[in-house]
Amino acid sequence: MEKKKLNLLLFSGEYDKALAALILANSARELEVDVSIFFAFWGLFLVRDPEKFTTEDKSMYEKMFGMMTPKGPNELPLSKMNFAGIGKEMLLEMMEEDDAPPLIAFLKGAQKKGVKFCACKLSVDVMGFKQEEFIPEVKIMEAKEYLSDALSSNMQLFI
Amino acid sequence: MEKKKLNLLLFSGEYDKALAALILANSARELEVDVSIFFAFWGLFLVRDPEKFTTEDKSMYEKMFGMMTPKGPNELPLSKMNFAGIGKEMLLEMMEEDDAPPLIAFLKGAQKKGVKFCACKLSVDVMGFKQEEFIPEVKIMEAKEYLSDALSSNMQLFI
Amino acid sequence: MEKKKLNLLLFSGEYDKALAALILANSARELEVDVSIFFAFWGLFLVRDPEKFTTEDKSMYEKMFGMMTPKGPNELPLSKMNFAGIGKEMLLEMMEEDDAPPLIAFLKGAQKKGVKFCACKLSVDVMGFKQEEFIPEVKIMEAKEYLSDALSSNMQLFI
Repeated sequence: MEKKKLNLLLFSGEYDKALAALILANSARELEVDVSIFFAFWGLFLVRDPEKFTTEDKSMYEKMFGMMTPKGPNELPLSKMNFAGIGKEMLLEMMEEDDAPPLIAFLKGAQKKGVKFCACKLSVDVMGFKQEEFIPEVKIMEAKEYLSDALSSNMQLFI
Repeated sequence: MEKKKLNLLLFSGEYDKALAALILANSARELEVDVSIFFAFWGLFLVRDPEKFTTEDKSMYEKMFGMMTPKGPNELPLSKMNFAGIGKEMLLEMMEEDDAPPLIAFLKGAQKKGVKFCACKLSVDVMGFKQEEFIPEVKIMEAKEYLSDALSSNMQLFI
Repeated sequence: MEKKKLNLLLFSGEYDKALAALILANSARELEVDVSIFFAFWGLFLVRDPEKFTTEDKSMYEKMFGMMTPKGPNELPLSKMNFAGIGKEMLLEMMEEDDAPPLIAFLKGAQKKGVKFCACKLSVDVMGFKQEEFIPEVKIMEAKEYLSDALSSNMQLFI
């Protein structure tokens, strides 16, 4: 039987949506499905390496943008439930109570299991990110390259 | 001709997004397409039975969470247009003017028409929901089971 | 080889999500892929012609709604980063720095390249929009017609 392929486009920069994407990616790999994630717009925040922030070779806007926005999985906000800021803390506590791993663990799982990480070139350029600011698995590519790959996959989601 | 299959993942807990999902589900059933909806994260709020809220066997966080969050279709907020809270009322009035049925009618339609309702086990566990707090059609399953089914569908959407 | 088909459902009424949808649509057309976009709910704002707003034959709610909501691509807000309102200005400046075209250019590109524009009849009726308030390419259709088309496409996204 031919190998199945799952293709995710992560547009959102939120903890809960990134969690959904990475749970699907990890589960699919366990089913021996090929998985690619194309990170675009706010989705790029997830694959920033928090240790590798630079301001070199950036415009004033790009520097400000890089400083103001989340650096890696732990800094992502929730999409909902930000009741006076307790939402994310509460969700994390509830996850811990059930021994559900945090986002960073699913990210590391995806890296180990061979999920393909692609970043949208246009978004990277506009936001002023440099290749070395991302985790090493990230490969920068055009939207067209993503589309060619996604069109031949069995399943595509925009998250 | 082989029967077509539509697979929706409802992640969002908002009135308008749930409405979009259920309109698609009902329309697809009228075209004799098989339909499954996998409810995850905030999407679970839609399939809570408002009469069946319990605090038994729940941690303090799970109790608080269950109380603070929407119980069933009528309590879901809008994703947009919450101008001073008039957004949802206004949309509901406008729907009534055009004889468009409310969300609860589309939910009942989907139940009658044999849409499959699946709930994400990890989300259910983390949020502390019990099987009996959901409408009776809901079957709790792992993300892997959802993925196997979705990968063999003709169309998948993340809503 | 049979021609591939991409089918997008644009539900969101935000600048960044509309940009993502139109970048995909334009890129797909450059790969000679057939593209349809089904505009539903807040997604309809993108295909409003800003010059053609009318209050004729509308209920009071429909008039208010038409006035309060974005008229065409330039008025769409950002989905994120609305830090004290500077988010969108900043993004637009950053796009200009990189010579990335604004949303309106991608919309015009999609019109020229033959992307099919469909509008959800139920949403149009509820919001009270008239055919002549949209850009001329827009064809109003039922959710079922969209579904039949989408089910036979190679790729579908809900944005």
